[in-house]
Amino acid sequence: MGRWEPDARERLVRAALDLFGEQGYENTAVAQIAERAGLTKSTFFRHFRDKREVLFGGQDELAEVLTTGIAEAPEGAGPLAAVGAALVAVSAWFTDAQRAYGPQRQAVIAGNDELRERAALKMVGFAVAMTDALKRRGVAELEAAVAAELGVLAFQRGYDAWLEAGGDFGEITRRTLRDVREAASSLEGAE
Amino acid sequence: MGRWEPDARERLVRAALDLFGEQGYENTAVAQIAERAGLTKSTFFRHFRDKREVLFGGQDELAEVLTTGIAEAPEGAGPLAAVGAALVAVSAWFTDAQRAYGPQRQAVIAGNDELRERAALKMVGFAVAMTDALKRRGVAELEAAVAAELGVLAFQRGYDAWLEAGGDFGEITRRTLRDVREAASSLEGAE
Repeated sequence: MGRWEPDARERLVRAALDLFGEQGYENTAVAQIAERAGLTKSTFFRHFRDKREVLFGGQDELAEVLTTGIAEAPEGAGPLAAVGAALVAVSAWFTDAQRAYGPQRQAVIAGNDELRERAALKMVGFAVAMTDALKRRGVAELEAAVAAELGVLAFQRGYDAWLEAGGDFGEITRRTLRDVREAASSLEGAE
Repeated sequence: MGRWEPDARERLVRAALDLFGEQGYENTAVAQIAERAGLTKSTFFRHFRDKREVLFGGQDELAEVLTTGIAEAPEGAGPLAAVGAALVAVSAWFTDAQRAYGPQRQAVIAGNDELRERAALKMVGFAVAMTDALKRRGVAELEAAVAAELGVLAFQRGYDAWLEAGGDFGEITRRTLRDVREAASSLEGAE
């Protein structure tokens, strides 16, 4: 079992999601996940810090890709175009394998308050990362914050649409970003 | 000490914030807060569930007032006008006494990861409450979500401006909501 397991990560994710669904997230120990996957606990910990990371792993890397996507958007691109570029930049993460796990992962999160909070904080983290990246492009603070929040709404809606129907994540979020932008324009003036 | 203490709540808040500032939030026990305030632990627990609630108490009530403010906005009011009405409805909460604690409270929160997360989740909760209230007014889901997010940005900015300069909270957030709305309008189209 100490030998190289090329598909260890995927087996661990599969085992964890199955166990979370069968007996609840709270009632599942790392040792059980490893056992179900036919692997050792130390193999688990080579891939994940804890069982929560099976659900939320890659968050920092994703924030980093969003940041880079904004930084590398064409010089003349406005804030929303830069956010759109960031959403395209992360699309490589949203593979068919990821999509296969999606509904099960969402069901586990929906059933647990702490996990729902964690998911909400993940989105807050993405908004902060995008706001900061936009400010580094010279976008004014308020415009940056608004564009980032609209970007997060587009990201969430795009993710749901992609889980439901599949397709190219970048193309889908480009569409949801346009929808969000139109919704913002349709709002009446505040006075 | 078991007798009625009319200013117990305020004394507890003052003692807690002082201790959090002096020795750190993590290192402060409820017993110490009560002692500093010259009250008993059981008096503390009549006012607050735990020490965190000294910082975040009233969150559910505030969400409720936002919800009611949106529900009771004039029939013809658009989503942003309804959000503006909600921000005016909560302004009664933002008293001079509240404002006096504000900077100390914010410093404690800024210095602790868990508290920063809690503050972020409070805003997520307000966004959810306002989105739901707008949907109950017949606002389409996406417009409701966008208006609520803009409302939260206006709330946060308004709170900061109010802490800094004082004044009427409702009037200040009416101005920040207009600023946020203008920032959203100034964003270029997504394509």
